[in-house]
Amino acid sequence: MATVEELQTRVKQLEEELERERTRNRGGTDGGGGRKKIDQMSSEVVDSNPYSRLMALKRMGIVDNYERIRDFTVAIVGVGGVGSVTAEMLTRCGIGKLLLFDYDKVELANMNRLFFQPHQAGLSKVQAAEITLRDINPDVEFETHNYNITTVDNFQHFMDRISHGHLKGDRPVDLVLSCVDNFEARMAINTACNEQGQVWIESGVSENAVSGHIQVIKPGETACFACAPPLVVASGIDEKTLKREGVCAASLPTTMGIVAGFLVQNTLKYLLEFGSVTYYLGYNAMQDFFPSMAMKPNPNCDDSFCTKLQTEYQEKLLAQPKEEAKEETVEEVVHDANDWGIELVAETTEEELKAASHGHVPELVEGVHVAYVRPMTQEDEEGAAGLTVDDQESLEDLMAKMKSI
Amino acid sequence: MATVEELQTRVKQLEEELERERTRNRGGTDGGGGRKKIDQMSSEVVDSNPYSRLMALKRMGIVDNYERIRDFTVAIVGVGGVGSVTAEMLTRCGIGKLLLFDYDKVELANMNRLFFQPHQAGLSKVQAAEITLRDINPDVEFETHNYNITTVDNFQHFMDRISHGHLKGDRPVDLVLSCVDNFEARMAINTACNEQGQVWIESGVSENAVSGHIQVIKPGETACFACAPPLVVASGIDEKTLKREGVCAASLPTTMGIVAGFLVQNTLKYLLEFGSVTYYLGYNAMQDFFPSMAMKPNPNCDDSFCTKLQTEYQEKLLAQPKEEAKEETVEEVVHDANDWGIELVAETTEEELKAASHGHVPELVEGVHVAYVRPMTQEDEEGAAGLTVDDQESLEDLMAKMKSI
Repeated sequence: MATVEELQTRVKQLEEELERERTRNRGGTDGGGGRKKIDQMSSEVVDSNPYSRLMALKRMGIVDNYERIRDFTVAIVGVGGVGSVTAEMLTRCGIGKLLLFDYDKVELANMNRLFFQPHQAGLSKVQAAEITLRDINPDVEFETHNYNITTVDNFQHFMDRISHGHLKGDRPVDLVLSCVDNFEARMAINTACNEQGQVWIESGVSENAVSGHIQVIKPGETACFACAPPLVVASGIDEKTLKREGVCAASLPTTMGIVAGFLVQNTLKYLLEFGSVTYYLGYNAMQDFFPSMAMKPNPNCDDSFCTKLQTEYQEKLLAQPKEEAKEETVEEVVHDANDWGIELVAETTEEELKAASHGHVPELVEGVHVAYVRPMTQEDEEGAAGLTVDDQESLEDLMAKMKSI
Repeated sequence: MATVEELQTRVKQLEEELERERTRNRGGTDGGGGRKKIDQMSSEVVDSNPYSRLMALKRMGIVDNYERIRDFTVAIVGVGGVGSVTAEMLTRCGIGKLLLFDYDKVELANMNRLFFQPHQAGLSKVQAAEITLRDINPDVEFETHNYNITTVDNFQHFMDRISHGHLKGDRPVDLVLSCVDNFEARMAINTACNEQGQVWIESGVSENAVSGHIQVIKPGETACFACAPPLVVASGIDEKTLKREGVCAASLPTTMGIVAGFLVQNTLKYLLEFGSVTYYLGYNAMQDFFPSMAMKPNPNCDDSFCTKLQTEYQEKLLAQPKEEAKEETVEEVVHDANDWGIELVAETTEEELKAASHGHVPELVEGVHVAYVRPMTQEDEEGAAGLTVDDQESLEDLMAKMKSI
């Protein structure tokens, strides 16, 4: 049994500890965390209104009806260097609902990118993100899934959630954002979105940390990830593989923050209908060069849902009055984007391209170039071309499995 | 005198409160905040190394010696939507020392931009920033100043700190980054940097939130802020004035995050000597257009330190061997930046330009166009051209005062 004196000492200790916690982590405020929920977005210009600077977009003539942002649901796959900042930007913009998917844990090795903090090391990324984001904006609804979307069961659940997880009831999300760092996860998202005719935006950052891109994919209307894979694979090797070999990809908070900025800016333009949505926007940090273009789908795409939607889209175009149809074609966008005379320049030589594709150069539609290649690993070099066929077969197996679920 | 029972209840209450604090704000970790200091940056690929992904820039052939980052000191003026993210990126990159200047308090109205959190409302921006940044990276040294640099006394102190505040002893900082939102503060930074021959980078975001820019200013070598003012003034009206009138500028976390990303990427390229430093990089979010160029200084610049340094720079060029001199000229950079056929397009009509300058179009050097204009306020409209002269005189008075200190 503790004495009064011992208890008094303990109370004092705890009070000090509590004070330290509050001071260190929250800046010594009154102890009330975050802010209260706000029923309706207001344009009122007062210091206490977290939406005044966003609602001002209406007065400035940029967005017709900013409040609509609360009606939208966005799924973010991958909550790492790009995905976490993407989630934070959308949260601060007051998006209706976010679905977050990731199976990784926060590590100190992630601290060279924005968002996560050292004291969160060891927590799952989705859990740590949800705690921080709820504090920033309690008006946003969150749904988090701490799993790898590429396993059979999880893929099925992922498909189910993006089809039915909308804030406004049993319907698909408005947009899926891919912020993953490996080929398999991109392929899984592509398969799911093709099957459901779901618009999504791909993003990626190169493993030397100084280039990145975003790419809008409208199944049937633009090239999907399976139509022209090398373009959208920042790196064929994921971080886990690299770490096993004792090396790791480089990354910078700048490049990742800029790519997240492009991704969310494009998301806002797409959802709130202002400015022009850019179908492909690249970023080369060394030269500050920003390639832009649009890509037609590949009629010989391996994904049967993609080719089916391509046919449907073409039929829809033909059924439309001529004027409307003209505005809708992707070719128009290509023309727009080329007004500045900008063309995508491959960062790789023809030789590197051949090496990367192991002699099997994919049949690309006109206008599609290769931006990134998968570097040769030691295993690739040992196995030569034979291994590549195996790789592709196992990928097809995976896809077949996914489709047969 | 409290009874044992009362004390036990109090202990329980405090323990719960402490747990809530930790869970809500820090994700329920072991209670040890942040991470320990690290003496030397290591390339080791382990989850616990916060620098592994940055040191990988060496292996990737991007940066020769990343560790040098610890030797640099950067001053950031303005810790708002752009400045706070700029400070966070540099902190995560492991910069040696940051000097932060701002006189504003965190408000809920700032929550539509990255970095600050609702529970920090009421704290000074520099204090809140320092608490968060120290937690993220305790290896960085911070020096914060909670004042307005444009008052006479503070301006003198500001000059003193950027001249003597380097991490490595009594010498100037390596770079000054301007992240302010008003004309007077930009002019004060320009005056200080011209007087001290200090390289700085200007940044700005338009008040409709959908465009921004960064601009490297090397006194004597490139145009300074006084050489061509309208180009670098995102808005002549600061937030305080707008708020008094019951309106406010719009802002987006995307545009501000992207501008901060460009600012820090350029800072890293300049300090660590990789890639090419872009002298002017603009961002138009509506069209995803990125104007780039370089600007020669105006030989008739009002700032006498600017014209003096221009002469010194020209003499230095003449004294150099021809090959070297060629590489150093700004004209070369103009040529490089125009390789893609990109030209800066004024966002304004000739008429708007005339209205903005109140009939007094500044004498701009060839190649310099106007990107932003100061919108006419009611006062401007009432006062017509006469008022403008007063404005300029009072600005000169201010400058004279600053110089005479």
